[in-house]
Amino acid sequence: MTTPEAGTYRIAGGHVLRPDMSVERADVVVDREAGLIEAIGNPSEDDLPDADATLDAEDCLVMPGLVNAHTHVAMTLLRGYADDKPLDAWLQEDIWPVEGVLEPADVRAGARLGVLEMIQSGTTAFADMYFHVGQVADVVAEAGLRARLGHGVVTVGKDDEAARADFQESLDVARDLDGAADGRVRTAVMPHSLTTVDADLLAEYVAEAREAGVPVHLHANETRDEVEPIVEAHDQRPLAYAREHGLLDGDAGDFLAHGVHLDESEVDLLAETGTGVVHCPASNMKLASGMAPVQDLLDAGVPLALGTDGAASNNDLSMFDELRDAAMLGKLAADDASAVPAEAAVEMATAGGADVLGLPGGRVEPGAAADLAVVDLDAAHLTPRHDLVSHLSYAASASDVCHTVCDGRVLMRDREVLTLDADATKREAERRAREAVERATGDGD
Amino acid sequence: MTTPEAGTYRIAGGHVLRPDMSVERADVVVDREAGLIEAIGNPSEDDLPDADATLDAEDCLVMPGLVNAHTHVAMTLLRGYADDKPLDAWLQEDIWPVEGVLEPADVRAGARLGVLEMIQSGTTAFADMYFHVGQVADVVAEAGLRARLGHGVVTVGKDDEAARADFQESLDVARDLDGAADGRVRTAVMPHSLTTVDADLLAEYVAEAREAGVPVHLHANETRDEVEPIVEAHDQRPLAYAREHGLLDGDAGDFLAHGVHLDESEVDLLAETGTGVVHCPASNMKLASGMAPVQDLLDAGVPLALGTDGAASNNDLSMFDELRDAAMLGKLAADDASAVPAEAAVEMATAGGADVLGLPGGRVEPGAAADLAVVDLDAAHLTPRHDLVSHLSYAASASDVCHTVCDGRVLMRDREVLTLDADATKREAERRAREAVERATGDGD
Repeated sequence: MTTPEAGTYRIAGGHVLRPDMSVERADVVVDREAGLIEAIGNPSEDDLPDADATLDAEDCLVMPGLVNAHTHVAMTLLRGYADDKPLDAWLQEDIWPVEGVLEPADVRAGARLGVLEMIQSGTTAFADMYFHVGQVADVVAEAGLRARLGHGVVTVGKDDEAARADFQESLDVARDLDGAADGRVRTAVMPHSLTTVDADLLAEYVAEAREAGVPVHLHANETRDEVEPIVEAHDQRPLAYAREHGLLDGDAGDFLAHGVHLDESEVDLLAETGTGVVHCPASNMKLASGMAPVQDLLDAGVPLALGTDGAASNNDLSMFDELRDAAMLGKLAADDASAVPAEAAVEMATAGGADVLGLPGGRVEPGAAADLAVVDLDAAHLTPRHDLVSHLSYAASASDVCHTVCDGRVLMRDREVLTLDADATKREAERRAREAVERATGDGD
Repeated sequence: MTTPEAGTYRIAGGHVLRPDMSVERADVVVDREAGLIEAIGNPSEDDLPDADATLDAEDCLVMPGLVNAHTHVAMTLLRGYADDKPLDAWLQEDIWPVEGVLEPADVRAGARLGVLEMIQSGTTAFADMYFHVGQVADVVAEAGLRARLGHGVVTVGKDDEAARADFQESLDVARDLDGAADGRVRTAVMPHSLTTVDADLLAEYVAEAREAGVPVHLHANETRDEVEPIVEAHDQRPLAYAREHGLLDGDAGDFLAHGVHLDESEVDLLAETGTGVVHCPASNMKLASGMAPVQDLLDAGVPLALGTDGAASNNDLSMFDELRDAAMLGKLAADDASAVPAEAAVEMATAGGADVLGLPGGRVEPGAAADLAVVDLDAAHLTPRHDLVSHLSYAASASDVCHTVCDGRVLMRDREVLTLDADATKREAERRAREAVERATGDGD
């Protein structure tokens, strides 16, 4: 098809993954302008509306676009720059020195590389915590996917003026960019974590975020080193401390990343407040952070999403890797091979992610946002087809995605990304990554 | 190029991963008939011999073919058939009933599917424990890779005659097939595990294996349920018990799969005897078996390899997934983000695997077997190129492999497998998998 800018098109010939995790033979009719799924049905049985064009999905599975609910997208520039080191040394010796020299154009190049990789792997929405956020918003606008963006705030080690300026930047970004890219960009205030932001400032700016009507996103309970200082200083668990400072308001859309080291009271608190948790299994393994109690969170009814975290601690942005990691690591954490089944992982990566981020998408159903990934099933590693949901979780990979659609617009067709120049994006990121490392270290790497 | 059946060819324009994990710009000259690497060098600096043909490796990394050191390859037929169940229920309710009705032609079709997937993902050698082993050997012969094959023996629940027949079959297979496929097939006697074979028979047949000059391969210390009964019945750790029954002879080439639950004395015993361990991280996660102490094994100098285990507990045969899982899970097991670095994982999946299996390959160096995988680096998820070994371990995936070479023969060129008909292989496996399930369950799934 030529990608239509108006009218309707039919995603034809495939199987469709429905919100109840059933799979049926069906076509999907998309209203391009409204950005919505107009109808779903088996063309030989159902009375489907005509469409102006066709997107071939023969031998494919049409599924909700994947939602990467926690990342730092421009960190693609640091993919493979430093690995296999303890967290503190990794941050202080390698990551922070390079991040310290990144210019807005670097963040733009890194975000473009990450967004290219996400579109190629069927991701249609992501949450991002970084700096030079306007650059990331521009890339989202140009590339056509959705995002909830924010400026990450760190106040420890800063004087009061600098700390306030950082928080104010996060609030300004959240106010100014909300609704950008025709509404595809939403925002949040993003204090980095409970141990890297000052308690008084936290409470003050969370109140401002409430007034501005934006949610709060932060890292929480990722490592034991984040839990123990709070328990020692405040004689309470980190999430009780967070709640006391105005965080964990599920109605306001708050969500946290990681939630690895949680006790029972904290699982209950997350469930009671409806606070979303973004599970990042690959990052938790690679940084030796620990195993999140994902089955316990599922049992308690905590809203759950999946995220890759930054590419420097993963090292890719494929949600198919994350699906597999979540289903597998969840079993090990629960000491139970029936924990975190494939369906639960797929749910977290689709509808769960969209709900936690408060963004449209996540479900293939009439009236829903047309945010879709089309997965080519004609592969040895996806044969035989006993169970396609199992395949999504355990056997499929990024390269199996052939089309990606967001807001009704075809972002990738037949594995060709239409909204970004892939070659130029890779070249620019390669060059800027090398130059940033040179600036940071005084030489090449 | 047209794939030469004689003469030499040059893998040109790429970067080469050397045994010391350095990467250099170099061409590789292959002697097709000898199946060996003749020379390696930078064409602008070194005096390389002329070659009759060229295999393009521009923008690629030429690495050793990957070694999948423990699998049950025909279990591809059961990929996704049953997941997310406790091990016992999974085996008894799902896996064994279907395996019980598999005919030789089914095993051939499943092996062909698995071998197709392995060649597509750059694997050039594997170890296989299954039944109807002659079928697997035929597929190895036709497809062109290498393998160490054996018939898996289970004696518990069988009368003496049937138990002996099973062991005899394993011995006969090991004797008869050793050296098949122009020497690319080697064999082993394969008792299933220490808890599923009778101790007296084990000792008797291990002695026969020694006489026949073939190694012994078995599952050991995979789950706690495999360790406790032996400790209770014999008041010794499983590997001490194994040693007492003639196993763990590193000089004879013995190797075991899993080694998840090992105490210090067992790690020492493995090191002393030079017994190889095949780490299967994905299977260990998916079946909630536990975390193998890989860094401890590395520190002790135990020969280490990586394996996918069967596709029903993985659910793919990509060694790139296994590389990533090994490096990541190893950190979690050691509670140390610097454990099992990328280089160690790549070593296990290449030279380590070849050495544990006692097969040629695993190293790109002059005079070594020309068993190679060529990885296309032109991908967003492999940009920027700070560290290509990191990329192999953490970011590359099966679909990045563009050429696969074994014994000097090009098995896949430009992502097209030359030795198997991919479409026919997928169709046949799909049909046979469905029919086997129908026979086992009385209906379709």
